[in-house]
Amino acid sequence: MRDLSNDKSNLSLNTATVRERWNLKQIIDGCARHDIGGIAPWRDQIAACGLDEAARRIKDAGLRVSGVCRGGMFPAADAAGRQANIDDNLRAVDEAVTLGADCLVLVVGGMPPGSKDLGDARRQVEDGIAATLEYARAHDMPLAIEPLHPMYAADRACVNTLGQALDICERLGDGVGVAIDVYHVWWDPDLETQIERAGRNNRILAFHVCDWLVPTTDMLLDRGMMGDGIIDIRGIRKQVEAAGYDGSCEVEIFSAQNWWKQDPDDVLQTCIERHQSVV
Amino acid sequence: MRDLSNDKSNLSLNTATVRERWNLKQIIDGCARHDIGGIAPWRDQIAACGLDEAARRIKDAGLRVSGVCRGGMFPAADAAGRQANIDDNLRAVDEAVTLGADCLVLVVGGMPPGSKDLGDARRQVEDGIAATLEYARAHDMPLAIEPLHPMYAADRACVNTLGQALDICERLGDGVGVAIDVYHVWWDPDLETQIERAGRNNRILAFHVCDWLVPTTDMLLDRGMMGDGIIDIRGIRKQVEAAGYDGSCEVEIFSAQNWWKQDPDDVLQTCIERHQSVV
Repeated sequence: MRDLSNDKSNLSLNTATVRERWNLKQIIDGCARHDIGGIAPWRDQIAACGLDEAARRIKDAGLRVSGVCRGGMFPAADAAGRQANIDDNLRAVDEAVTLGADCLVLVVGGMPPGSKDLGDARRQVEDGIAATLEYARAHDMPLAIEPLHPMYAADRACVNTLGQALDICERLGDGVGVAIDVYHVWWDPDLETQIERAGRNNRILAFHVCDWLVPTTDMLLDRGMMGDGIIDIRGIRKQVEAAGYDGSCEVEIFSAQNWWKQDPDDVLQTCIERHQSVV
Repeated sequence: MRDLSNDKSNLSLNTATVRERWNLKQIIDGCARHDIGGIAPWRDQIAACGLDEAARRIKDAGLRVSGVCRGGMFPAADAAGRQANIDDNLRAVDEAVTLGADCLVLVVGGMPPGSKDLGDARRQVEDGIAATLEYARAHDMPLAIEPLHPMYAADRACVNTLGQALDICERLGDGVGVAIDVYHVWWDPDLETQIERAGRNNRILAFHVCDWLVPTTDMLLDRGMMGDGIIDIRGIRKQVEAAGYDGSCEVEIFSAQNWWKQDPDDVLQTCIERHQSVV
Protein backbone atom coordinates (compact mmCIF):
# COMPACT_ATOMS: atom_id res chain seq x y z
CA MET A 1 0.00 0.00 0.00
CA ARG A 2 1.08 3.57 -0.56
CA ASP A 3 3.18 5.38 2.00
CA LEU A 4 1.25 8.55 2.85
CA SER A 5 3.42 9.60 5.78
CA ASN A 6 4.71 12.65 3.91
CA ASP A 7 1.95 12.89 1.34
CA LYS A 8 -0.42 15.71 0.60
CA SER A 9 -1.01 15.09 -3.09
CA ASN A 10 -3.34 12.13 -2.51
CA LEU A 11 -5.38 14.04 0.06
CA SER A 12 -8.59 15.56 -1.23
CA LEU A 13 -10.85 17.86 0.74
CA ASN A 14 -14.57 17.38 0.45
CA THR A 15 -15.83 20.91 0.85
CA ALA A 16 -18.51 19.88 3.35
CA THR A 17 -15.70 19.60 5.89
CA VAL A 18 -15.22 23.38 6.14
CA ARG A 19 -18.18 24.85 4.26
CA GLU A 20 -19.83 26.33 7.32
CA ARG A 21 -17.14 29.00 7.52
CA TRP A 22 -15.65 29.18 4.01
CA ASN A 23 -17.25 29.56 0.58
CA LEU A 24 -15.89 27.63 -2.37
CA LYS A 25 -13.37 30.29 -3.38
CA GLN A 26 -11.99 30.36 0.14
CA ILE A 27 -11.83 26.57 0.23
CA ILE A 28 -9.94 26.43 -3.07
CA ASP A 29 -7.50 29.04 -1.78
CA GLY A 30 -7.17 27.13 1.49
CA CYS A 31 -6.36 23.87 -0.28
CA ALA A 32 -3.74 25.63 -2.39
CA ARG A 33 -2.27 27.36 0.66
CA HIS A 34 -1.96 24.03 2.50
CA ASP A 35 -0.67 22.22 -0.60
CA ILE A 36 -3.57 19.74 -0.51
CA GLY A 37 -3.81 17.77 -3.74
CA GLY A 38 -7.51 17.59 -4.40
CA ILE A 39 -10.99 18.89 -3.75
CA ALA A 40 -14.53 17.52 -3.95
CA PRO A 41 -17.00 20.41 -4.23
CA TRP A 42 -20.75 20.34 -3.62
CA ARG A 43 -23.06 21.49 -6.36
CA ASP A 44 -24.74 24.30 -4.42
CA GLN A 45 -21.33 25.80 -3.73
CA ILE A 46 -20.36 25.40 -7.38
CA ALA A 47 -23.55 27.22 -8.38
CA ALA A 48 -22.93 30.00 -5.88
CA CYS A 49 -19.42 30.50 -7.24
CA GLY A 50 -20.44 30.04 -10.85
CA LEU A 51 -19.52 26.84 -12.66
CA ASP A 52 -16.98 28.28 -15.06
CA GLU A 53 -15.29 30.38 -12.41
CA ALA A 54 -15.18 27.39 -10.05
CA ALA A 55 -13.61 25.28 -12.80
CA ARG A 56 -11.05 28.00 -13.59
CA ARG A 57 -10.10 28.56 -9.96
CA ILE A 58 -9.76 24.85 -9.24
CA LYS A 59 -7.61 24.40 -12.34
CA ASP A 60 -5.47 27.42 -11.52
CA ALA A 61 -4.92 26.05 -8.03
CA GLY A 62 -3.71 22.77 -9.50
CA LEU A 63 -6.31 20.74 -7.63
CA ARG A 64 -7.52 17.33 -8.69
CA VAL A 65 -11.31 17.00 -8.43
CA SER A 66 -11.78 13.63 -6.73
CA GLY A 67 -15.54 13.83 -7.17
CA VAL A 68 -18.51 16.14 -7.46
CA CYS A 69 -21.11 15.95 -4.69
CA ARG A 70 -23.59 14.95 -5.75
CA GLY A 71 -25.99 13.33 -8.13
CA GLY A 72 -28.58 10.80 -7.12
CA MET A 73 -31.76 11.39 -5.13
CA PHE A 74 -33.70 9.49 -7.80
CA PRO A 75 -36.91 8.25 -6.12
CA ALA A 76 -40.02 10.41 -6.27
CA ALA A 77 -43.72 9.99 -5.68
CA ASP A 78 -44.64 10.29 -9.37
CA ALA A 79 -43.22 10.03 -12.88
CA ALA A 80 -42.80 13.78 -13.29
CA GLY A 81 -40.75 13.92 -10.11
CA ARG A 82 -38.59 11.03 -11.24
CA GLN A 83 -37.95 12.69 -14.61
CA ALA A 84 -37.07 15.96 -12.91
CA ASN A 85 -34.56 14.06 -10.79
CA ILE A 86 -33.04 12.41 -13.85
CA ASP A 87 -32.80 15.78 -15.61
CA ASP A 88 -30.99 17.15 -12.59
CA ASN A 89 -28.54 14.27 -12.75
CA LEU A 90 -27.80 15.04 -16.40
CA ARG A 91 -26.95 18.61 -15.37
CA ALA A 92 -24.75 17.20 -12.62
CA VAL A 93 -22.88 15.16 -15.23
CA ASP A 94 -22.29 18.36 -17.23
CA GLU A 95 -20.94 20.12 -14.17
CA ALA A 96 -18.64 17.23 -13.30
CA VAL A 97 -17.32 17.23 -16.87
CA THR A 98 -16.68 20.97 -16.79
CA LEU A 99 -14.76 20.53 -13.54
CA GLY A 100 -12.78 17.59 -14.89
CA ALA A 101 -13.89 15.45 -11.98
CA ASP A 102 -12.80 11.85 -11.47
CA CYS A 103 -16.45 10.90 -10.97
CA LEU A 104 -19.92 12.11 -10.12
CA VAL A 105 -20.84 10.76 -6.70
CA LEU A 106 -24.40 9.43 -6.40
CA VAL A 107 -26.22 9.58 -3.08
CA VAL A 108 -29.10 7.66 -4.52
CA GLY A 109 -32.04 8.81 -2.40
CA GLY A 110 -34.43 7.11 -0.01
CA MET A 111 -38.11 6.28 0.00
CA PRO A 112 -40.55 8.93 -1.25
CA PRO A 113 -42.59 10.56 1.54
CA GLY A 114 -45.39 8.29 2.67
CA SER A 115 -43.93 5.18 1.06
CA LYS A 116 -43.19 1.98 2.95
CA ASP A 117 -42.00 0.19 -0.17
CA LEU A 118 -38.24 -0.05 0.09
CA GLY A 119 -38.04 -2.44 -2.84
CA ASP A 120 -39.82 0.06 -5.07
CA ALA A 121 -37.42 2.83 -4.04
CA ARG A 122 -34.52 0.57 -4.90
CA ARG A 123 -35.99 -0.16 -8.33
CA GLN A 124 -36.47 3.58 -8.90
CA VAL A 125 -32.84 4.16 -8.02
CA GLU A 126 -31.61 1.58 -10.48
CA ASP A 127 -33.90 2.94 -13.19
CA GLY A 128 -32.67 6.46 -12.49
CA ILE A 129 -29.02 5.47 -12.71
CA ALA A 130 -29.73 3.58 -15.93
CA ALA A 131 -31.45 6.67 -17.37
CA THR A 132 -28.42 8.81 -16.51
CA LEU A 133 -25.77 6.36 -17.54
CA GLU A 134 -25.90 6.65 -21.32
CA TYR A 135 -25.39 10.40 -21.10
CA ALA A 136 -22.61 9.96 -18.56
CA ARG A 137 -20.86 7.39 -20.75
CA ALA A 138 -21.12 9.68 -23.78
CA HIS A 139 -19.40 12.39 -21.78
CA ASP A 140 -16.87 10.01 -20.26
CA MET A 141 -17.96 10.81 -16.70
CA PRO A 142 -18.02 7.78 -14.37
CA LEU A 143 -20.95 7.53 -11.97
CA ALA A 144 -19.94 6.49 -8.45
CA ILE A 145 -22.72 4.90 -6.40
CA GLU A 146 -22.01 5.64 -2.75
CA PRO A 147 -23.61 3.04 -0.51
CA LEU A 148 -24.72 4.89 2.61
CA HIS A 149 -24.92 3.50 6.13
CA PRO A 150 -28.19 1.62 6.72
CA MET A 151 -29.30 4.31 9.18
CA TYR A 152 -29.92 6.49 6.09
CA ALA A 153 -31.91 3.87 4.18
CA ALA A 154 -35.28 5.58 4.67
CA ASP A 155 -34.49 9.15 3.80
CA ARG A 156 -31.12 9.51 2.07
CA ALA A 157 -29.94 6.42 0.28
CA CYS A 158 -31.56 3.01 -0.08
CA VAL A 159 -28.34 1.50 -1.40
CA ASN A 160 -26.74 0.45 1.85
CA THR A 161 -24.02 -2.08 1.25
CA LEU A 162 -21.12 -2.33 -1.13
CA GLY A 163 -22.42 -5.66 -2.34
CA GLN A 164 -25.79 -4.14 -3.21
CA ALA A 165 -24.08 -1.31 -5.12
CA LEU A 166 -21.92 -3.76 -7.04
CA ASP A 167 -24.95 -5.83 -7.96
CA ILE A 168 -26.41 -2.69 -9.55
CA CYS A 169 -23.13 -1.93 -11.33
CA GLU A 170 -22.98 -5.41 -12.81
CA ARG A 171 -26.54 -5.21 -14.08
CA LEU A 172 -25.90 -1.80 -15.68
CA GLY A 173 -22.50 -2.42 -17.24
CA ASP A 174 -19.66 -0.01 -17.87
CA GLY A 175 -19.37 3.57 -16.70
CA VAL A 176 -20.67 3.06 -13.17
CA GLY A 177 -18.77 2.10 -10.04
CA VAL A 178 -18.69 2.80 -6.33
CA ALA A 179 -17.48 5.40 -3.86
CA ILE A 180 -16.30 3.62 -0.72
CA ASP A 181 -16.68 5.76 2.41
CA VAL A 182 -15.32 4.11 5.53
CA TYR A 183 -18.05 5.75 7.63
CA HIS A 184 -20.76 3.95 5.70
CA VAL A 185 -19.19 0.53 5.22
CA TRP A 186 -16.86 -0.18 8.15
CA TRP A 187 -19.42 -2.36 9.99
CA ASP A 188 -20.15 -4.68 7.03
CA PRO A 189 -19.25 -8.33 7.73
CA ASP A 190 -18.88 -8.78 3.98
CA LEU A 191 -16.69 -5.73 3.43
CA GLU A 192 -13.37 -7.33 2.52
CA THR A 193 -15.01 -9.74 0.08
CA GLN A 194 -16.91 -6.94 -1.62
CA ILE A 195 -13.86 -4.66 -1.86
CA GLU A 196 -12.02 -7.48 -3.63
CA ARG A 197 -14.99 -7.95 -5.93
CA ALA A 198 -15.11 -4.22 -6.67
CA GLY A 199 -11.43 -4.26 -7.53
CA ARG A 200 -11.68 -7.24 -9.86
CA ASN A 201 -14.21 -5.31 -11.90
CA ASN A 202 -12.42 -1.94 -11.71
CA ARG A 203 -15.37 -0.38 -9.93
CA ILE A 204 -13.64 1.59 -7.15
CA LEU A 205 -13.93 5.23 -8.20
CA ALA A 206 -13.48 7.03 -4.88
CA PHE A 207 -12.35 6.45 -1.30
CA HIS A 208 -13.73 8.68 1.46
CA VAL A 209 -12.51 8.89 5.03
CA CYS A 210 -13.63 10.25 8.39
CA ASP A 211 -14.33 8.31 11.61
CA TRP A 212 -17.16 6.81 13.65
CA LEU A 213 -17.31 8.34 17.11
CA VAL A 214 -18.41 6.49 20.25
CA PRO A 215 -20.86 7.74 21.26
CA THR A 216 -22.30 9.26 18.10
CA THR A 217 -24.71 11.96 19.23
CA ASP A 218 -26.29 12.86 15.89
CA MET A 219 -27.04 10.54 13.01
CA LEU A 220 -25.97 13.07 10.37
CA LEU A 221 -23.72 15.73 11.82
CA ASP A 222 -21.45 13.99 14.32
CA ARG A 223 -18.78 12.41 12.20
CA GLY A 224 -15.27 12.29 13.57
CA MET A 225 -11.82 13.28 12.33
CA MET A 226 -9.77 10.28 11.23
CA GLY A 227 -8.22 8.73 14.32
CA ASP A 228 -10.80 10.02 16.79
CA GLY A 229 -13.17 7.07 16.39
CA ILE A 230 -13.18 3.30 16.12
CA ILE A 231 -12.77 2.64 12.39
CA ASP A 232 -9.67 0.77 11.30
CA ILE A 233 -9.18 3.24 8.45
CA ARG A 234 -5.75 2.03 7.45
CA GLY A 235 -6.95 -1.55 7.36
CA ILE A 236 -9.71 -0.60 4.94
CA ARG A 237 -7.36 1.53 2.82
CA LYS A 238 -5.01 -1.43 2.61
CA GLN A 239 -7.83 -3.55 1.21
CA VAL A 240 -8.95 -0.84 -1.20
CA GLU A 241 -5.43 -0.33 -2.53
CA ALA A 242 -4.82 -4.07 -2.76
CA ALA A 243 -7.91 -4.08 -4.97
CA GLY A 244 -6.18 -1.64 -7.30
CA TYR A 245 -7.37 1.78 -6.16
CA ASP A 246 -4.75 4.50 -6.49
CA GLY A 247 -6.86 7.67 -6.36
CA SER A 248 -7.42 10.29 -3.70
CA CYS A 249 -8.26 9.82 -0.05
CA GLU A 250 -11.12 12.28 0.29
CA VAL A 251 -11.87 13.71 3.73
CA GLU A 252 -15.56 14.37 4.30
CA ILE A 253 -16.55 15.35 7.83
CA PHE A 254 -20.00 16.54 8.87
CA SER A 255 -19.44 17.82 12.39
CA ALA A 256 -21.81 20.55 13.50
CA GLN A 257 -20.61 20.73 17.09
CA ASN A 258 -16.88 20.33 16.63
CA TRP A 259 -14.96 20.69 13.35
CA TRP A 260 -17.44 23.02 11.70
CA LYS A 261 -16.91 25.47 14.55
CA GLN A 262 -13.14 25.51 14.33
CA ASP A 263 -10.88 27.72 12.24
CA PRO A 264 -10.82 26.10 8.78
CA ASP A 265 -7.07 26.53 8.50
CA ASP A 266 -6.67 24.50 11.68
CA VAL A 267 -9.09 21.89 10.34
CA LEU A 268 -7.09 21.54 7.12
CA GLN A 269 -3.86 21.21 9.08
CA THR A 270 -5.44 18.46 11.20
CA CYS A 271 -6.73 16.71 8.06
CA ILE A 272 -3.20 16.67 6.68
CA GLU A 273 -1.73 15.34 9.92
CA ARG A 274 -4.31 12.58 10.19
CA HIS A 275 -4.06 11.76 6.48
CA GLN A 276 -0.37 11.14 7.03
CA SER A 277 -0.59 9.35 10.38
CA VAL A 278 -3.95 7.54 10.52
CA VAL A 279 -5.28 7.04 6.98
CA MET B 1 -50.08 -15.92 7.40
CA ARG B 2 -51.95 -15.67 10.66
CA ASP B 3 -54.94 -13.36 11.01
CA LEU B 4 -54.17 -11.12 13.97
CA SER B 5 -57.07 -8.72 13.45
CA ASN B 6 -58.77 -9.88 16.66
CA ASP B 7 -55.74 -11.38 18.32
CA LYS B 8 -54.16 -10.56 21.63
CA SER B 9 -52.72 -13.96 22.49
CA ASN B 10 -49.80 -13.65 20.05
CA LEU B 11 -48.92 -10.18 21.27
CA SER B 12 -46.07 -10.01 23.76
CA LEU B 13 -44.97 -6.90 25.59
CA ASN B 14 -41.28 -6.27 25.98
CA THR B 15 -41.16 -4.51 29.32
CA ALA B 16 -38.83 -1.79 27.99
CA THR B 17 -41.90 -0.33 26.29
CA VAL B 18 -43.43 0.90 29.55
CA ARG B 19 -40.69 0.44 32.13
CA GLU B 20 -40.14 4.13 32.73
CA ARG B 21 -43.46 4.35 34.56
CA TRP B 22 -44.22 0.81 35.70
CA ASN B 23 -42.16 -1.76 37.58
CA LEU B 24 -42.33 -5.43 36.60
CA LYS B 25 -45.24 -6.26 38.91
CA GLN B 26 -47.25 -3.41 37.43
CA ILE B 27 -46.36 -4.50 33.90
CA ILE B 28 -47.45 -8.08 34.60
CA ASP B 29 -50.72 -6.81 36.06
CA GLY B 30 -51.15 -4.48 33.06
CA CYS B 31 -50.65 -7.29 30.56
CA ALA B 32 -53.20 -9.41 32.41
CA ARG B 33 -55.67 -6.53 32.60
CA HIS B 34 -55.39 -5.92 28.84
CA ASP B 35 -55.50 -9.65 28.05
CA ILE B 36 -52.10 -9.50 26.33
CA GLY B 37 -50.69 -12.97 25.72
CA GLY B 38 -47.03 -12.59 26.53
CA ILE B 39 -44.26 -10.66 28.18
CA ALA B 40 -40.50 -10.25 27.69
CA PRO B 41 -38.93 -8.98 30.90
CA TRP B 42 -35.50 -7.40 31.36
CA ARG B 43 -33.11 -8.92 33.83
CA ASP B 44 -32.69 -5.85 36.01
CA GLN B 45 -36.45 -5.72 36.49
CA ILE B 46 -36.53 -9.44 37.24
CA ALA B 47 -33.82 -8.92 39.86
CA ALA B 48 -35.68 -5.98 41.40
CA CYS B 49 -38.86 -8.05 41.68
CA GLY B 50 -37.06 -11.21 42.75
CA LEU B 51 -36.69 -14.07 40.27
CA ASP B 52 -39.01 -16.54 41.96
CA GLU B 53 -41.68 -13.95 42.60
CA ALA B 54 -41.44 -12.73 39.01
CA ALA B 55 -41.80 -16.29 37.75
CA ARG B 56 -44.79 -16.92 40.00
CA ARG B 57 -46.57 -13.71 39.05
CA ILE B 58 -45.99 -14.24 35.33
CA LYS B 59 -47.27 -17.80 35.59
CA ASP B 60 -50.29 -16.77 37.63
CA ALA B 61 -51.11 -14.11 35.04
CA GLY B 62 -51.05 -16.78 32.33
CA LEU B 63 -48.40 -14.95 30.34
CA ARG B 64 -46.12 -16.60 27.84
CA VAL B 65 -42.51 -15.41 28.18
CA SER B 66 -41.46 -14.73 24.59
CA GLY B 67 -37.91 -14.03 25.67
CA VAL B 68 -35.68 -12.80 28.48
CA CYS B 69 -33.73 -9.61 27.82
CA ARG B 70 -30.92 -10.15 27.78
CA GLY B 71 -27.77 -12.16 27.62
CA GLY B 72 -24.82 -11.29 25.43
CA MET B 73 -22.35 -8.41 25.86
CA PHE B 74 -19.49 -10.87 25.47
CA PRO B 75 -16.45 -8.82 24.37
CA ALA B 76 -14.10 -7.45 27.00
CA ALA B 77 -10.62 -6.02 27.12
CA ASP B 78 -9.12 -9.02 28.91
CA ALA B 79 -9.69 -12.70 29.65
CA ALA B 80 -11.05 -12.06 33.14
CA GLY B 81 -13.62 -9.69 31.72
CA ARG B 82 -14.64 -12.18 29.06
CA GLN B 83 -15.03 -14.94 31.65
CA ALA B 84 -17.13 -12.66 33.86
CA ASN B 85 -19.37 -12.00 30.90
CA ILE B 86 -19.74 -15.70 30.17
CA ASP B 87 -20.55 -16.36 33.83
CA ASP B 88 -23.23 -13.69 33.66
CA ASN B 89 -24.70 -15.40 30.60
CA LEU B 90 -24.89 -18.69 32.47
CA ARG B 91 -26.89 -16.93 35.19
CA ALA B 92 -29.12 -15.45 32.49
CA VAL B 93 -29.79 -18.97 31.20
CA ASP B 94 -30.83 -20.00 34.70
CA GLU B 95 -33.21 -17.07 34.96
CA ALA B 96 -34.73 -17.77 31.55
CA VAL B 97 -35.28 -21.39 32.58
CA THR B 98 -36.92 -20.37 35.84
CA LEU B 99 -39.26 -18.07 33.91
CA GLY B 100 -40.05 -20.74 31.33
CA ALA B 101 -38.97 -18.40 28.52
CA ASP B 102 -39.08 -19.31 24.85
CA CYS B 103 -35.49 -18.13 24.52
CA LEU B 104 -32.72 -16.04 26.00
CA VAL B 105 -32.15 -13.05 23.73
CA LEU B 106 -28.50 -12.19 23.12
CA VAL B 107 -27.46 -8.61 22.42
CA VAL B 108 -23.93 -9.70 21.74
CA GLY B 109 -21.92 -6.60 22.61
CA GLY B 110 -19.66 -4.27 20.66
CA MET B 111 -15.97 -3.48 20.62
CA PRO B 112 -14.17 -3.16 23.97
CA PRO B 113 -13.24 0.44 24.84
CA GLY B 114 -10.18 1.55 22.91
CA SER B 115 -10.38 -1.24 20.36
CA LYS B 116 -10.57 -0.67 16.61
CA ASP B 117 -10.59 -4.38 15.87
CA LEU B 118 -14.11 -5.27 14.82
CA GLY B 119 -13.05 -8.71 13.65
CA ASP B 120 -11.64 -9.51 17.08
CA ALA B 121 -14.87 -8.39 18.77
CA ARG B 122 -16.80 -10.68 16.45
CA ARG B 123 -14.54 -13.59 17.31
CA GLN B 124 -15.01 -12.88 21.03
CA VAL B 125 -18.77 -12.91 20.52
CA GLU B 126 -18.73 -16.26 18.80
CA ASP B 127 -16.41 -17.69 21.46
CA GLY B 128 -18.71 -16.35 24.18
CA ILE B 129 -21.82 -17.86 22.65
CA ALA B 130 -19.99 -21.16 22.21
CA ALA B 131 -18.95 -21.07 25.88
CA THR B 132 -22.57 -20.49 26.94
CA LEU B 133 -24.18 -22.90 24.54
CA GLU B 134 -23.39 -26.22 26.18
CA TYR B 135 -24.95 -25.05 29.44
CA ALA B 136 -27.95 -23.63 27.58
CA ARG B 137 -28.45 -26.89 25.69
CA ALA B 138 -28.25 -28.91 28.89
CA HIS B 139 -31.01 -26.75 30.32
CA ASP B 140 -33.02 -26.76 27.10
CA MET B 141 -32.91 -22.96 26.78
CA PRO B 142 -32.49 -21.73 23.19
CA LEU B 143 -30.12 -18.79 22.68
CA ALA B 144 -31.47 -16.18 20.29
CA ILE B 145 -28.82 -14.01 18.64
CA GLU B 146 -30.40 -10.66 17.88
CA PRO B 147 -28.61 -8.93 15.01
CA LEU B 148 -28.68 -5.24 15.80
CA HIS B 149 -28.79 -2.38 13.32
CA PRO B 150 -25.31 -1.49 12.01
CA MET B 151 -25.49 1.86 13.81
CA TYR B 152 -24.91 -0.13 17.02
CA ALA B 153 -21.93 -2.11 15.70
CA ALA B 154 -19.34 -0.22 17.74
CA ASP B 155 -20.89 -0.16 21.17
CA ARG B 156 -23.85 -2.57 21.46
CA ALA B 157 -23.74 -5.46 19.05
CA CYS B 158 -21.20 -6.36 16.39
CA VAL B 159 -23.56 -8.92 14.85
CA ASN B 160 -25.40 -6.68 12.42
CA THR B 161 -27.14 -8.76 9.79
CA LEU B 162 -29.35 -11.81 9.85
CA GLY B 163 -26.95 -13.54 7.48
CA GLN B 164 -24.04 -12.96 9.85
CA ALA B 165 -26.05 -14.32 12.78
CA LEU B 166 -27.04 -17.40 10.81
CA ASP B 167 -23.43 -18.02 9.84
CA ILE B 168 -22.62 -18.13 13.56
CA CYS B 169 -25.57 -20.44 14.24
CA GLU B 170 -24.46 -22.86 11.56
CA ARG B 171 -20.93 -22.98 12.90
CA LEU B 172 -22.15 -23.60 16.45
CA GLY B 173 -24.88 -26.15 15.77
CA ASP B 174 -28.09 -26.81 17.66
CA GLY B 175 -29.57 -24.74 20.45
CA VAL B 176 -28.91 -21.33 18.97
CA GLY B 177 -31.04 -19.27 16.61
CA VAL B 178 -32.04 -15.69 15.92
CA ALA B 179 -34.38 -12.99 17.17
CA ILE B 180 -35.60 -10.98 14.19
CA ASP B 181 -36.44 -7.39 15.09
CA VAL B 182 -37.88 -5.40 12.20
CA TYR B 183 -36.17 -2.23 13.49
CA HIS B 184 -32.76 -3.79 13.07
CA VAL B 185 -33.19 -5.67 9.81
CA TRP B 186 -35.76 -3.86 7.65
CA TRP B 187 -33.09 -2.13 5.51
CA ASP B 188 -31.18 -5.31 4.60
CA PRO B 189 -31.16 -6.02 0.83
CA ASP B 190 -30.65 -9.69 1.69
CA LEU B 191 -33.46 -9.89 4.25
CA GLU B 192 -35.95 -12.11 2.47
CA THR B 193 -33.26 -14.61 1.45
CA GLN B 194 -31.92 -14.79 4.99
CA ILE B 195 -35.38 -15.18 6.55
CA GLU B 196 -35.98 -18.14 4.26
CA ARG B 197 -32.61 -19.56 5.23
CA ALA B 198 -33.39 -19.10 8.92
CA GLY B 199 -36.68 -20.90 8.46
CA ARG B 200 -35.17 -23.85 6.64
CA ASN B 201 -32.92 -24.43 9.61
CA ASN B 202 -35.56 -23.74 12.27
CA ARG B 203 -33.57 -20.85 13.64
CA ILE B 204 -36.27 -18.20 14.11
CA LEU B 205 -36.82 -18.00 17.85
CA ALA B 206 -38.39 -14.55 18.23
CA PHE B 207 -39.98 -11.76 16.20
CA HIS B 208 -39.84 -8.20 17.51
CA VAL B 209 -41.75 -5.20 16.21
CA CYS B 210 -41.72 -1.42 16.47
CA ASP B 211 -41.17 1.12 13.68
CA TRP B 212 -38.46 3.33 12.14
CA LEU B 213 -39.43 6.99 12.33
CA VAL B 214 -38.48 9.61 9.72
CA PRO B 215 -36.73 11.57 10.98
CA THR B 216 -35.17 9.55 13.79
CA THR B 217 -33.88 12.04 16.32
CA ASP B 218 -32.00 9.71 18.64
CA MET B 219 -30.09 6.58 17.71
CA LEU B 220 -31.26 4.64 20.75
CA LEU B 221 -34.42 6.14 22.21
CA ASP B 222 -36.55 7.28 19.29
CA ARG B 223 -38.22 4.12 18.09
CA GLY B 224 -41.76 4.37 16.79
CA MET B 225 -45.03 2.59 17.45
CA MET B 226 -45.92 0.12 14.72
CA GLY B 227 -47.54 2.04 11.88
CA ASP B 228 -45.97 5.40 12.69
CA GLY B 229 -42.84 4.81 10.61
CA ILE B 230 -41.74 3.43 7.27
CA ILE B 231 -41.20 -0.27 7.91
CA ASP B 232 -43.40 -2.69 5.98
CA ILE B 233 -43.97 -4.69 9.15
CA ARG B 234 -46.68 -6.92 7.73
CA GLY B 235 -44.52 -7.74 4.74
CA ILE B 236 -41.73 -8.90 7.01
CA ARG B 237 -44.13 -10.86 9.27
CA LYS B 238 -45.47 -12.58 6.17
CA GLN B 239 -41.94 -13.71 5.29
CA VAL B 240 -41.19 -14.80 8.84
CA GLU B 241 -44.38 -16.82 9.09
CA ALA B 242 -43.86 -18.31 5.63
CA ALA B 243 -40.52 -19.48 7.02
CA GLY B 244 -42.39 -21.35 9.76
CA TYR B 245 -42.43 -18.97 12.70
CA ASP B 246 -45.58 -19.20 14.79
CA GLY B 247 -44.51 -17.54 18.05
CA SER B 248 -45.24 -14.18 19.61
CA CYS B 249 -45.02 -10.74 18.04
CA GLU B 250 -43.08 -8.91 20.71
CA VAL B 251 -43.45 -5.14 20.94
CA GLU B 252 -40.27 -3.39 22.05
CA ILE B 253 -40.28 0.40 21.89
CA PHE B 254 -37.56 2.66 23.27
CA SER B 255 -39.14 6.10 23.07
CA ALA B 256 -37.89 8.59 25.62
CA GLN B 257 -39.76 11.60 24.28
CA ASN B 258 -43.08 10.01 23.34
CA TRP B 259 -44.33 6.61 24.46
CA TRP B 260 -42.32 6.46 27.68
CA LYS B 261 -44.05 9.66 28.79
CA GLN B 262 -47.58 8.44 28.17
CA ASP B 263 -49.92 6.57 30.49
CA PRO B 264 -48.84 2.91 30.23
CA ASP B 265 -52.45 1.73 30.00
CA ASP B 266 -52.86 3.92 26.91
CA VAL B 267 -49.60 2.59 25.49
CA LEU B 268 -50.76 -1.01 25.95
CA GLN B 269 -54.09 -0.22 24.30
CA THR B 270 -52.27 1.32 21.33
CA CYS B 271 -49.95 -1.69 21.11
CA ILE B 272 -52.99 -3.95 20.88
CA GLU B 273 -54.63 -1.81 18.19
CA ARG B 274 -51.48 -1.66 16.10
CA HIS B 275 -50.78 -5.36 16.64
CA GLN B 276 -54.19 -6.07 15.15
CA SER B 277 -54.11 -3.49 12.36
CA VAL B 278 -50.49 -2.96 11.33
CA VAL B 279 -48.42 -5.97 12.40
